Amino acid sequence: MTEKLKIIPLGGLGEVGKNMMALIYGEAILIIDAGNMLPESDMLGVDMVIPDFGYLRDKADQVVGIVITHGHEDHIGALPYLLSEINAPVYATPLTCGLIKSKLSSHRLPAKPGLHTVRPGDSVGLGPFRVEFFSVNHSIPDNVGLAIETPLGLVVHSGDFKFDYTPVHGQPADFATLAQLGARGVLALLSDSTNAEAAGFTPSERSVEPAFDAIFREAPGRIIVATFSSLLSRIQQVVDCAVRWNRRVAFAGRSMLESVAIARDLGYLRMPEGVEVDLCDVDSLPPEQVVVMATGSQGEPESALARMATGRYKQLRIQPGDTVVHSAQIIPGNEELAHRTINRLLQRGAEVVYGEVAAVHVSGHASQEEQKLLLSLLKPRYFIPIHGELRMLHAHARTAERMGIPAQHIFTVENGYVVEIDANGAQVTERVPGGYVFVDGATVGEVGRAVLREREALGRDGVVSVALLVDGEGRPVGEPEIASRGFVFVRESGELLAGARQKALEALQRLPAGSDRAACEASVKKALEGYFFTEARRRPIIIATVLQAVAEPATG
Amino acid sequence: MTEKLKIIPLGGLGEVGKNMMALIYGEAILIIDAGNMLPESDMLGVDMVIPDFGYLRDKADQVVGIVITHGHEDHIGALPYLLSEINAPVYATPLTCGLIKSKLSSHRLPAKPGLHTVRPGDSVGLGPFRVEFFSVNHSIPDNVGLAIETPLGLVVHSGDFKFDYTPVHGQPADFATLAQLGARGVLALLSDSTNAEAAGFTPSERSVEPAFDAIFREAPGRIIVATFSSLLSRIQQVVDCAVRWNRRVAFAGRSMLESVAIARDLGYLRMPEGVEVDLCDVDSLPPEQVVVMATGSQGEPESALARMATGRYKQLRIQPGDTVVHSAQIIPGNEELAHRTINRLLQRGAEVVYGEVAAVHVSGHASQEEQKLLLSLLKPRYFIPIHGELRMLHAHARTAERMGIPAQHIFTVENGYVVEIDANGAQVTERVPGGYVFVDGATVGEVGRAVLREREALGRDGVVSVALLVDGEGRPVGEPEIASRGFVFVRESGELLAGARQKALEALQRLPAGSDRAACEASVKKALEGYFFTEARRRPIIIATVLQAVAEPATG
Repeated sequence: MTEKLKIIPLGGLGEVGKNMMALIYGEAILIIDAGNMLPESDMLGVDMVIPDFGYLRDKADQVVGIVITHGHEDHIGALPYLLSEINAPVYATPLTCGLIKSKLSSHRLPAKPGLHTVRPGDSVGLGPFRVEFFSVNHSIPDNVGLAIETPLGLVVHSGDFKFDYTPVHGQPADFATLAQLGARGVLALLSDSTNAEAAGFTPSERSVEPAFDAIFREAPGRIIVATFSSLLSRIQQVVDCAVRWNRRVAFAGRSMLESVAIARDLGYLRMPEGVEVDLCDVDSLPPEQVVVMATGSQGEPESALARMATGRYKQLRIQPGDTVVHSAQIIPGNEELAHRTINRLLQRGAEVVYGEVAAVHVSGHASQEEQKLLLSLLKPRYFIPIHGELRMLHAHARTAERMGIPAQHIFTVENGYVVEIDANGAQVTERVPGGYVFVDGATVGEVGRAVLREREALGRDGVVSVALLVDGEGRPVGEPEIASRGFVFVRESGELLAGARQKALEALQRLPAGSDRAACEASVKKALEGYFFTEARRRPIIIATVLQAVAEPATG
Repeated sequence: MTEKLKIIPLGGLGEVGKNMMALIYGEAILIIDAGNMLPESDMLGVDMVIPDFGYLRDKADQVVGIVITHGHEDHIGALPYLLSEINAPVYATPLTCGLIKSKLSSHRLPAKPGLHTVRPGDSVGLGPFRVEFFSVNHSIPDNVGLAIETPLGLVVHSGDFKFDYTPVHGQPADFATLAQLGARGVLALLSDSTNAEAAGFTPSERSVEPAFDAIFREAPGRIIVATFSSLLSRIQQVVDCAVRWNRRVAFAGRSMLESVAIARDLGYLRMPEGVEVDLCDVDSLPPEQVVVMATGSQGEPESALARMATGRYKQLRIQPGDTVVHSAQIIPGNEELAHRTINRLLQRGAEVVYGEVAAVHVSGHASQEEQKLLLSLLKPRYFIPIHGELRMLHAHARTAERMGIPAQHIFTVENGYVVEIDANGAQVTERVPGGYVFVDGATVGEVGRAVLREREALGRDGVVSVALLVDGEGRPVGEPEIASRGFVFVRESGELLAGARQKALEALQRLPAGSDRAACEASVKKALEGYFFTEARRRPIIIATVLQAVAEPATG
């Protein structure tokens, strides 16, 4: 058997390169990250989307380790579900471990997971792989890239990265380590594509500080800053700004409180004694001495900010004089909800400062010039753009091609495609199960595309249920009972529904005597579908139930 | 009675300043524009959103005229519905009239509408108002602003505008007319806020030409350009480019064909003989001699482009070598669908050029520097920002305030608020019915918020219908029949549904003998709601129907 290394993106959407990878050499499988994502707008009722682990399910024994690059949800959110199927050791930096522990505490796992803390500079042998962790800049502390020594050569995984000369947390961009990796020779680079469409160089995390200072200087009353609970560098900056401008800081939203508690415990959030104030006590302070950090930057309807915007947040009522700062990327697909929240805050009299009008947010991901810099430092033989929608992977691939990497050495692949490297070259060889699984309520994977299609139809035109009693011959007994939801105002549609009752009866009368229940139900359903389309150009879902009248009522 | 002028934004969403206004002096009402908008993502199943004309309904006789600024959907889309209630004369420029006629032809109106063609420079007396039409630049020809002489002074309505020194259609920005209006003294300016968040000056429509020339020069095969059918200046530019680069042009999508036909008929689209080719004949041409203009830039699922992206468009199959150019603004809220279409086109092997990676689109709306220029030229006493979401109106108001207009002379109002001007000043006096109405299938206004809330619940967790037979005492007869849609895979959830049947029976048995149908149904509904939440953390809508068994089956 020739030596082969397989690289497979596994996580997230079919159309989106999301954050879970597998490296396979011989029998040994190394997993990198296991993120979740929020459902897209047509994944109705779905709470969370996680990668499909189907390909790994019968190979659980072969997994030598799970390596996590940092503690953002799109890198750790699926870990509880993965660990419930595959009990392999997990390696991550201290803050990432803290966030993982907090996440796992609310899940019941079949076995206690082995969680191992590593630090930049450490290396860990996992089967045929030796994984070295190196610091890279991002918007959360303790973020790492991975240099993975395999029997075929060095594979570098960028993690989520940007080059920041003046980061809020940790060390400036570590070019020395990258240059040394480049000197060792890089077989393949897997690199973050999130900002591959953006020309130029992403500004430093520090670049938002002038805008924040101006806001803190001028705001006449309370300041409310909305951001991700995991955007710890922004939280640190707001705390620092509060200290400079003599304001006290309160935190709103469960995940914000959790994430701040973990970061403080582990020493990743510097907050002088007496700066924090409980949200309940904010009203006793003068407004100009208060800043509140809240979740809800994506307009999530149950988040702290969205509830403030609609007057449903008891602890804090928005009032004229408040200044709300929206300091976060709006994730593609969330624009409408996020902007609606901004409109509603304006409606309540708040000033709102947001990305379109001031520099209060900066991306944590590399733009094209940084992506080029990384390619220059590492000079990889093969290049696989990762992290991002297909359009971003393509943009990153174009950049790599312009940098001189031959097109046939670049693999712009979707989830489940296997890139196989051996001594002779590299190619895409097969597609394994990949894609996504829906978490809905307490169920994982029980809701699939068919159920979603029904939900879409229900959401579009509603449902009409009709129940009828028939005798032994299949002839109707009494009047059909009709109920509808999401279809029309019942009180204004008496005529429409009366007509439907009539159509249902006629449908049964047309059937041959002795027709069975299934035939009766199908006939009623078809008659009503036709009727509602003709009368109202609408296609509600029809549920017809035919019950058989029995001569002698039985006791229940 | 003191003389009073009322200015009321009426159209569109409560939260959004959309494109319908009323000016009222004494009894006389002048209407400006009547646009529609696409439903937001949580307006499930709604086909179209139009303004609520409720305030005007009992004042139809007082409407002295309807003035339309240009032919985009968000300015003329609600006109058929308005004219079906208010038969007032309509005034518009020739192309706008052509587009209106085409739109009205598919609606049956109670009376033939009076459609009057006007040209820039014309003025029309309508009751106490004299309306002068003046040219302003936008992305469609024959676009006008309005100078409305009222007994209280001159009101200027900007229409949708930008200042373009090198427009594709019509004359460069007409500063002389604007300066003359300013010299006459402007009582109130109503000005387009769409781009109020954007610093700087919007580039000329011509600025996309280098990017198009580069694409036409380099594309190895067919070029498909997606844009709005009403973006006639872009269509003209693509036709011109096709002529320069020896390609023939086909049009795809019903609205694209209609709009091109009207514009050609009226002389607003210059296309040399022999350049156009029917879409059916495209396959007989070498790919490098073809450009197709298609609808679908917003990812609308039934548009030409979305169907190409999913392989459902028979007339044109996307293939490697095709270059797709996405040349349109993505309207806020449509980002997810539009980007999904781009991803799918990439998946099928096309090159895709879009706004994030190349300058293939430019806005048709003024940015901040142009808004300042208009304010400088007109020096209005009062300022009302119009056209845009509340956040854009606020941004425009901030700009006006920085220009020296006192805050109390600026009215950032939502739909339905009445700005009243008299000799003593101006103020917001009341709120009249305003907002929006849903068009759903053949019905206008019959679907409201309550039905939408039900649709949302149905879309989130589906529906479970349960039908039971009871005897005269309210005791169950036989087994309940359960059906679900959008809830779970039925074949994997036998146990869950069997448990539900049992719960339904138990609920009835707990009721006192002789309970009526309503009590039986309520009890079953409550029991199942509790059961599904406990067992699966889900909240499907439950429709319970209890039928009474009868002793003697009647014939139907």
